[in-house]
Amino acid sequence: MDWVIKLGGSLFPDDAINFCNALVGKNAIIICGGGEFANKIREYDKDISFSNTANHKTAILCMDILGMLVADKADGAVAVYSIEDAKNAIDNGKLPILLPSKILEYLDPLEHSWKVTSDSISVYISWLLKTKILIVTNVDGIYDSDPSLDGAKLIKSISAKKLLNFGETSVDENLPELLLKYKLDCYVVNGKYPKRAISIIEGKSSKYTFIGGN
Amino acid sequence: MDWVIKLGGSLFPDDAINFCNALVGKNAIIICGGGEFANKIREYDKDISFSNTANHKTAILCMDILGMLVADKADGAVAVYSIEDAKNAIDNGKLPILLPSKILEYLDPLEHSWKVTSDSISVYISWLLKTKILIVTNVDGIYDSDPSLDGAKLIKSISAKKLLNFGETSVDENLPELLLKYKLDCYVVNGKYPKRAISIIEGKSSKYTFIGGN
Repeated sequence: MDWVIKLGGSLFPDDAINFCNALVGKNAIIICGGGEFANKIREYDKDISFSNTANHKTAILCMDILGMLVADKADGAVAVYSIEDAKNAIDNGKLPILLPSKILEYLDPLEHSWKVTSDSISVYISWLLKTKILIVTNVDGIYDSDPSLDGAKLIKSISAKKLLNFGETSVDENLPELLLKYKLDCYVVNGKYPKRAISIIEGKSSKYTFIGGN
Repeated sequence: MDWVIKLGGSLFPDDAINFCNALVGKNAIIICGGGEFANKIREYDKDISFSNTANHKTAILCMDILGMLVADKADGAVAVYSIEDAKNAIDNGKLPILLPSKILEYLDPLEHSWKVTSDSISVYISWLLKTKILIVTNVDGIYDSDPSLDGAKLIKSISAKKLLNFGETSVDENLPELLLKYKLDCYVVNGKYPKRAISIIEGKSSKYTFIGGN
């Protein structure tokens, strides 16, 4: 396995399914975000205040749900719970979508908080597997200001250290810290154009933000 | 264990949490419905048409999510994956909330379809454990017509056989068939008034619908 690809829940359903269709055969493992399901937990949490652990564990189940649903619709994708099954899937020409709940039940390496989302979980699994990491979202990468505003510019490359002070971006708040801790680099790319992700994987030029953690 | 209590997802969060608070110490096991999380899968399914198995498995994960969140907030409740842990919880004066995904992963006894919801799953588990079954919902029981209409009357008692022809009610479509198959009776009661459920458990009179499957 060369790549862990975190597929943003905001791309679910159509863009996420199309993305996976395009990535079959690419020696990569997909991890889905929790999308609207995880957002619903956040909403309830604002009213009710669940414990950090309850939020964390249920949000991870939302990643399993999206992963199962995407795998159900993407030809050539298959939902797996273990790294071994992911490797077998790749050997058989399939695209594995890792459902992270079972691995994280046993390892539980990350802080339980809303700062730690599926981005951080994917970086952790990428570190575990010694792969490269690609974060696929619904914008072109990280911008120098709010991307919905006029004049916001896409950042081509930034250090994780600098990103620490950026506040809210298209990646989760804990991500730069984790990239520094694990000495990992990361690409952020728009999932609506699967060819961009494929270009990155194939070492070609593309539109993305590179985050340097080394 | 004397009772399996299916707690309707429509009662989540406040009424579901209050209900569990009131039921601690009652020799019962709670199974939560999937609430708005499962409804979201239904919505996506209408657009995208997932396989029956993907719908079924992800809807069961929604039951786990609600169970974890209710257990997190209800004092004295505890989320469990196994019958053994449920029994231990009761022995320790706790109220077990069973997260059904792991049991159902191994047993998988029910049809994969939207007709089979958490009601049927709870009936199956009640049959497995040889307990009585109580279905807790957000209306007083089953009515002779749409309960939102004037003049709809609560049915005190009905046979499962007769209920087969009722179409949509406050319990799932597959439930009467399952009660007949397993020769089980069932009570349907309003969860906004936990005392009603407690009265049933204690063999006292209460407001409910009794469904006879024997």
